[in-house]
Amino acid sequence: MTEERESVYERLKDRLATISDLSSANGLLFWDRQTYMPEGGVAGRAEQMATLSRLAHEMFTDAEMNRLLGSSEELDPSSEKGALLRRVRRDHERATRLPAKLVAEIARTTTLAESAWVKAREESDWSLFAPHLQKIVRLQRETTEHLGYDGHPYDALLDGYEPGARTVQLETMFEELKEGIVPIVRAIAGRAYEEDRTALLHGTFVEAEQEKFGKVVINAFGYDWERGRQDRAVHPFCINFGPGDVRITTRFDKGWLAPALFGTMHEAGHALYEQGINPDYARTPLGGGTSMGLHESQSRLWENLVGRSKLFWSYYYTMLQKAFPGALSEVDLEAFYRAINVLEASSIRVEADEVTYNLHILLRFELEVALIEDELSVVDLPAAWNAKMKEYLDITPENNTEGVLQDVHWSNGLFGYFPTYAIGNVLSVQFFDEALKQRREIPIEMKEGKFSTLHIWLRENIYRHGSRYYPDELIERVTGRPLDTAPYLRYLKNKFSELYDLD
Amino acid sequence: MTEERESVYERLKDRLATISDLSSANGLLFWDRQTYMPEGGVAGRAEQMATLSRLAHEMFTDAEMNRLLGSSEELDPSSEKGALLRRVRRDHERATRLPAKLVAEIARTTTLAESAWVKAREESDWSLFAPHLQKIVRLQRETTEHLGYDGHPYDALLDGYEPGARTVQLETMFEELKEGIVPIVRAIAGRAYEEDRTALLHGTFVEAEQEKFGKVVINAFGYDWERGRQDRAVHPFCINFGPGDVRITTRFDKGWLAPALFGTMHEAGHALYEQGINPDYARTPLGGGTSMGLHESQSRLWENLVGRSKLFWSYYYTMLQKAFPGALSEVDLEAFYRAINVLEASSIRVEADEVTYNLHILLRFELEVALIEDELSVVDLPAAWNAKMKEYLDITPENNTEGVLQDVHWSNGLFGYFPTYAIGNVLSVQFFDEALKQRREIPIEMKEGKFSTLHIWLRENIYRHGSRYYPDELIERVTGRPLDTAPYLRYLKNKFSELYDLD
Repeated sequence: MTEERESVYERLKDRLATISDLSSANGLLFWDRQTYMPEGGVAGRAEQMATLSRLAHEMFTDAEMNRLLGSSEELDPSSEKGALLRRVRRDHERATRLPAKLVAEIARTTTLAESAWVKAREESDWSLFAPHLQKIVRLQRETTEHLGYDGHPYDALLDGYEPGARTVQLETMFEELKEGIVPIVRAIAGRAYEEDRTALLHGTFVEAEQEKFGKVVINAFGYDWERGRQDRAVHPFCINFGPGDVRITTRFDKGWLAPALFGTMHEAGHALYEQGINPDYARTPLGGGTSMGLHESQSRLWENLVGRSKLFWSYYYTMLQKAFPGALSEVDLEAFYRAINVLEASSIRVEADEVTYNLHILLRFELEVALIEDELSVVDLPAAWNAKMKEYLDITPENNTEGVLQDVHWSNGLFGYFPTYAIGNVLSVQFFDEALKQRREIPIEMKEGKFSTLHIWLRENIYRHGSRYYPDELIERVTGRPLDTAPYLRYLKNKFSELYDLD
Repeated sequence: MTEERESVYERLKDRLATISDLSSANGLLFWDRQTYMPEGGVAGRAEQMATLSRLAHEMFTDAEMNRLLGSSEELDPSSEKGALLRRVRRDHERATRLPAKLVAEIARTTTLAESAWVKAREESDWSLFAPHLQKIVRLQRETTEHLGYDGHPYDALLDGYEPGARTVQLETMFEELKEGIVPIVRAIAGRAYEEDRTALLHGTFVEAEQEKFGKVVINAFGYDWERGRQDRAVHPFCINFGPGDVRITTRFDKGWLAPALFGTMHEAGHALYEQGINPDYARTPLGGGTSMGLHESQSRLWENLVGRSKLFWSYYYTMLQKAFPGALSEVDLEAFYRAINVLEASSIRVEADEVTYNLHILLRFELEVALIEDELSVVDLPAAWNAKMKEYLDITPENNTEGVLQDVHWSNGLFGYFPTYAIGNVLSVQFFDEALKQRREIPIEMKEGKFSTLHIWLRENIYRHGSRYYPDELIERVTGRPLDTAPYLRYLKNKFSELYDLD
C-alpha cells in the first residue's frame, strides 16, 4: 500500500494527540489525588492511573506506531516538523528498548520499595530499605544495558531526564561547582555569628495573607490566572493539561514564611515555562519543557535570581510588612534580605540554601554513579553518604533518617534525576545574565516590581520553543555557548561575599 | 483455539475494568471542568474528553470484545456472574447497533445545537434553535431504527436511560399521575392566599452556615465523607470514580435558602446509592445504579420524603434557626414547613414544587413522543408547548425562554430522559412506604434526627445490588409488585390536603 507522506504525518500526529490526551487525563488523576481526592479513592485511583499509563505506553509502542514512524520522512530537525519527528523517534526508541517484563518488574519493585522506605525512614533503619534498593540498582543496571550508551552506563539513565546529557560533562560541572562552592561554605562556616538571622521568618503568618501576597507576586511575574490556578498540596508541584491549563500547588506553614513564599515563586517559574510554549505544539511531544534541567532553571531563576534579590525586595518588602505587621514591622529590609539568604550547612537537602544545595546534589550524583558502576555496594551506602557529608559540608547526620534515607527518589527508581537540580541552578544564572545583557531595562523594572521585559525575553528565547530543541541546542542558541558554571559561581561569590562581608 | 470458559470470563472482566477506568478518568475530567478548571482549559478539555470517550467506545465494541462475548457462557442471570454477562451483552448490543457515522453525526449536531440553544434562549428566538432540533429529531428517529424496538420507536430511546421501560407503560403512569395531580393543583390554585408563604426563604443566609448545616444533615443521612466530598458547581450533580470516591456538588445562593438546602439532600441521595453498592462490583458494569429512574427515586426520597417532611424538621428546625437567627428566629416550625412545601404552578420546571413537577415532565414526555412519531413538527412545538402548559398548569409562558426553550436536554439529544424524573418521584414513595412497613422504627428515629435504619434498609434492599437487577426486577423484588402510582398519589393527596386544608 502506498501512502502519501502527508497522510502518514497526519496520522502520526493524530495518534500523538490521543496519547497526549491520555497523559493529560492521567495528570489530572494525579493532581486530584494530591489535592482533593478523599482517602477512600486511593485504591481505585491507583488502578485508573495504571490503566491510563498502560494504554498510553501501548499506543506509543504498538505496530501501527512503528509503521507510521517507519514510513515517515527523514526531515531536517531545524524545521518544526523535523524537530517533532526527531523527538518522537527518540522517545519511541527509549520506550521500545525496554522489555515490558522489565518495566513491570520496575513498577512492582518500586511500589514495594517506597513503602519499605517510608518505614525505614520512620525507624531510621537502613536494613529495612537496603534489600529493596539492591534490587532497584540491579534493575537500573539492567535498564542501562537495554537502553544502550556510548560512554558511561549512567548516561542511559541521565538521558531520560536530560536528553543528551553525559556523565563525563556532569563530572566536570560538579568538579567546577565543588571548587567554587566549598571555599565559600568554609569561609562562612569559619565565622561566628551571635544572632540567628533566620529567626524573623518564624512567627505567626496568617495563611490567607501568605496566599494573597504570593498571588500578587506571581501575577507580577506574568502567571496567567485564566490559564491556571493555585491549590494546596503537601508536596508542591506544577502540572499542566495543555497550554490553557497550567496549575501550581503550594504548601502553607502558618509558623514559617519561607516555604509558601519561595515555593509559590518556584512553581510559578515552572508554570511560566509551560504557559509560554507555542500553543501550536499542544497535544504533541513538543508541547512541554525540553528537559528537567531546563525546567528547573526557570523555577530557580524566578525563585532565586528574582525572588531572593535585593532589587525585588526593595519594591515588595513594604507590601510584605503590611501583610504581616506583627511579625515584620520592626524588621528592616536589610535584615529580611539577610534572613532569606542565610548560608548554613544542613544535613537535609530540601532545607538547604542556594549555595550548599549543590553539594547535596553532588553527593547524590557521585553515589549514584558509583552504585551503577558497581563500585559501591548498597550495604556500604550509609557510610559513604556520611563520609561525603563530612567532606563537603562538615556535617555528620544524626541518623540515617536525616542522612541517606531522607529522599524518596531512589525508592522510586529515579536514578539520573538528581543532577538536573544542579543543572537548573547553573543554567538559571547563565540565562539570567544573558537576559540582562540583552535587555538593560530589566533591573530598572525589577526595582519597580515589574517583570514583563524579563518574562517576554524568556518566553521568546526559551519558553515558546517547548521541546523543539534539545537542551544543549537551546543553551547554545540562547547564550551562544554551552552550559557554563562561571556565571553561576561568579553570582554566588558576589552575592554571599557581600552578605557575609567576605573579602 | 479452545479457550477455558473461566479464562474468557477473566479476560472479559479485565477489559471491562480498563473501560471502567477510562470512564472514571473521563468523569474526573468532567468534575474538574464543572468545579475548578480555569477558563483557558476549555478547548483542551473537550479534546481530552472526546478522546477518552472514543477509546472506551472502541474497546467496548471491537473484535476482541465480540469474540469474548461470543465465547462466554450463557448463565442464569440470577447469579452475579450471569447478571454481569447479561448487562454487558445488553449494553454491547446497544453500542454496536449504532453505526459510528451516526454516533459522530449526533455528536457534531448536538455540539452545534447546544450553542444555538444558548443563543436562542438568550434572545427568546425559536427560529434560531428550530433547524437544529429538526436535525436532532431526525437523528433520534434514525437511532430508533438502528436500535430496534418491539412496540413504540420511543421505547428504543427510553431504554437507554431506563432499561426495559416501555412507552405504553409510561402512558398509563402519566395518565394516572395526571388524574391524581390535576385536581390537587386546581383545588389549590382556586384558593386565594393573602400572604406569600415562601418569602421567609429569601433573605440573608451566610454561605458558610448553609454549607455547615447541609453537611450535618447529609452526615446524619449516612453520607461517608471518607469516600466523598462536596464542592461548588453552577449545575449541581453527583459523580463517582468507584465506590471509594463518590462526590457531590452544590450551588449556594446567599439570598435564598432553598437551592443549597434541598440540592445538598438531593445529590446526597444519589451519592448514598453509589456509596452503598457492593464494592465487589467496582470496575464492572454492575458497579453503578441500575437506571436513571431508580437513581432519581433515591435523590427524591431523601430530598422530599425525608427533607421536606414534618418529622425531619421537628428535629432539625431548631438547629436551622440557630444557624440563621436573623432570618428565622421569628419564624415558627409550621410556617417554615409550609414555606418549603408551597404548591404553586410555575412555568419553569426546575423551580416547580413536588406536585406540579410531574406535569412538567408529562408535557415533555407527550411532546417527545409526538416528535418521534412524526405527529408533531418542530415548527409547531412552541404552540403545542404553550397549549399543554395552559391545559395542565393554567399558565401561559411569557415567552419561549420561559417556555419551550428552558431546558438544555433536547439540544443535547437526550430524548427519553425526562420521563425518568417522574419515574423517580413515583418510586420514591413506593420504596419509602415499603421501608416504613418493614421497619416501624423509621419515623421514631427520624423524629430524633436519625436515619440509620432507613439508610441500612435502602442499602440492603436497593443500593448494594448496583446494576445486578433491571429496574422492573428490583422494584418487584423490593416491594412485591411493579411500579405503582397509588402510594405516590396517596402521599401527595394527604400531604397537600393537610397543608392547604382541603377536604
